[in-house]
Amino acid sequence: MEKAKDTTSCDRLAAFESYRARMNQRILAADHLGIKRFFHLDETAYCDGALDRKTKELLGLVASMVLRCNDCIDYHLINCVRLGFSDEELFDAMNVALIVGGSIVIPHLRHAVETLDLLRTRENPTE
Amino acid sequence: MEKAKDTTSCDRLAAFESYRARMNQRILAADHLGIKRFFHLDETAYCDGALDRKTKELLGLVASMVLRCNDCIDYHLINCVRLGFSDEELFDAMNVALIVGGSIVIPHLRHAVETLDLLRTRENPTE
Amino acid sequence: MEKAKDTTSCDRLAAFESYRARMNQRILAADHLGIKRFFHLDETAYCDGALDRKTKELLGLVASMVLRCNDCIDYHLINCVRLGFSDEELFDAMNVALIVGGSIVIPHLRHAVETLDLLRTRENPTE
Amino acid sequence: MEKAKDTTSCDRLAAFESYRARMNQRILAADHLGIKRFFHLDETAYCDGALDRKTKELLGLVASMVLRCNDCIDYHLINCVRLGFSDEELFDAMNVALIVGGSIVIPHLRHAVETLDLLRTRENPTE
Amino acid sequence: MEKAKDTTSCDRLAAFESYRARMNQRILAADHLGIKRFFHLDETAYCDGALDRKTKELLGLVASMVLRCNDCIDYHLINCVRLGFSDEELFDAMNVALIVGGSIVIPHLRHAVETLDLLRTRENPTE
Amino acid sequence: MEKAKDTTSCDRLAAFESYRARMNQRILAADHLGIKRFFHLDETAYCDGALDRKTKELLGLVASMVLRCNDCIDYHLINCVRLGFSDEELFDAMNVALIVGGSIVIPHLRHAVETLDLLRTRENPTE
Repeated sequence: MEKAKDTTSCDRLAAFESYRARMNQRILAADHLGIKRFFHLDETAYCDGALDRKTKELLGLVASMVLRCNDCIDYHLINCVRLGFSDEELFDAMNVALIVGGSIVIPHLRHAVETLDLLRTRENPTE
Repeated sequence: MEKAKDTTSCDRLAAFESYRARMNQRILAADHLGIKRFFHLDETAYCDGALDRKTKELLGLVASMVLRCNDCIDYHLINCVRLGFSDEELFDAMNVALIVGGSIVIPHLRHAVETLDLLRTRENPTE
Repeated sequence: MEKAKDTTSCDRLAAFESYRARMNQRILAADHLGIKRFFHLDETAYCDGALDRKTKELLGLVASMVLRCNDCIDYHLINCVRLGFSDEELFDAMNVALIVGGSIVIPHLRHAVETLDLLRTRENPTE
Repeated sequence: MEKAKDTTSCDRLAAFESYRARMNQRILAADHLGIKRFFHLDETAYCDGALDRKTKELLGLVASMVLRCNDCIDYHLINCVRLGFSDEELFDAMNVALIVGGSIVIPHLRHAVETLDLLRTRENPTE
Repeated sequence: MEKAKDTTSCDRLAAFESYRARMNQRILAADHLGIKRFFHLDETAYCDGALDRKTKELLGLVASMVLRCNDCIDYHLINCVRLGFSDEELFDAMNVALIVGGSIVIPHLRHAVETLDLLRTRENPTE
Repeated sequence: MEKAKDTTSCDRLAAFESYRARMNQRILAADHLGIKRFFHLDETAYCDGALDRKTKELLGLVASMVLRCNDCIDYHLINCVRLGFSDEELFDAMNVALIVGGSIVIPHLRHAVETLDLLRTRENPTE
């Protein structure tokens, strides 16, 4: 099974993570109380609660796919992989997003699977 | 904790289920191969697979909430309650939908919680 | 093939048409130039042009389904039926909307098919 | 200029306000910390700040229209009327929503204008 | 009439087609039955049926524009041009999408027209 | 407070403005009456009327954010800055968009704040 490998793409995740961190810091530095509290609420929404964090990151992934936001997909996929979901489980979740959201989700499915491959390569660079 | 109880609302779930069943039958009777296959795919997407059915119904619930579809919310809530999710778990999932989708989700959160109360009343009619 | 027939539903189309006509008149009476021009542009968009009106009403129907607006669906279905589309053609167009938009479109497909049945009953009241 | 007046519609606003208050209370009683904090954040977002409350309610109205949520439209229209916007100003804001969001917004424009008329009737019941 | 011509853009279509083909192959290789069946259903939805393929590709184009997905727009435009639609017909269809979806569709209209110009240049490279 | 400054980003606004101008000209040159009239209506929607232009550009900004369109956000931010809104006012408006639209708006908030910084740098290149 061939995977996404060209170098340009390989830097995509790092570029996203760096841009995201830099701009979030810039936004929080603007010191708008409402925005700062929303960012905090957003983080705590995925902490362990009645549901565990792992399940909630999967909910975040599917929500991001049906709403068709690549940056949100990448963010939740990074966490889903880190929390131990297998490819089979992630494809099964993405299938739910595809059925609910339809073919308009397919470009984001392509993006998500490319991200997943980049994350697996990062875990096992020699692969 | 007061719950939604007026009789009009009490019949809402039964009316939805009956309308849904009748119209789905009508649609399938039109015998369009593509539509029939989509309905079948939709059903199988929530069957046990790499992820179990219970997790996938929760994914369906959150996807329905962020896409703001009351009928889809009711459908997945019915299944989530039947599969044994507690109120605490469902509120924790709905919180993810609220954070992802924002205040525009609130009217659908009100609908979902009303549905949840109707489903609990159905389980324990004497309550 | 059983069709939707209960009297409450039977009045649904007439109620929609009357409410739509009354409120459009009210809106135009407010005399906001931009809104009046938009309403005019909206009407002319479906007139015969490089594409004929019939094709453009079908485009309007599918756009309304993927954007999940029941009133817009009813409006374009009324026109599609009046312009001579067969049920087979309409189901084929609705299948495109279903595939593009996913299962979240299904509640609107149920609504659309109910409307279609009401329109056919109106054409042939003795059926 | 004729306005929406039938008694059924006249109770629509009161029913919305009562349902909204009852279900919000029910939701807050579930005591999910994230949801409670979001509801609080939502309220404070429209308080006087760098922008005054009046301007922010208008932003909420236009956001609700382009996202096509009737309950959110009603909520912000009630506040916009209470804060002193004229009909002319509200139609001018709704025109922006119509241009940005397109004809799919029209059913919600009809709803909004009906609500506006109900609110004006409430202010001047003898009119 | 000046057309989009800079070399960077000229490669855009080829890059899209190659990425799309590579990632679709990767996704199908993951062997998730639901996803594979959905991809198959998606393809057959545009085959000749009660409506001909040409009409259905136009439906796909307008659905993609109102849902604001550039990749989906490119995919259906490629097919629409191949099936013989004239520029006048395509602009007439895109006008329907613009009216239904509003000014938020304009950035995607710009993208679509650029794609259309690239496709015409591809047909007549000497032009 | 550190701001976005890398040269690649610095050219982003100029590239957007040039592409937008070129493609709008191309679209208008196609001479489709409906599209030309829509473009004209779109422009006049933000002119002084019952509401002043400044307020309407802010409405356009918030509508663009909740509908998650970066090009539309950039267009309205350029106008908002030119019409004299302070950063504090713009963050307060963006907070409304964030609360209404949820965390799915955050990637567009990052984009908007980066654009805002680029616009301020353009105003004061020596800063």
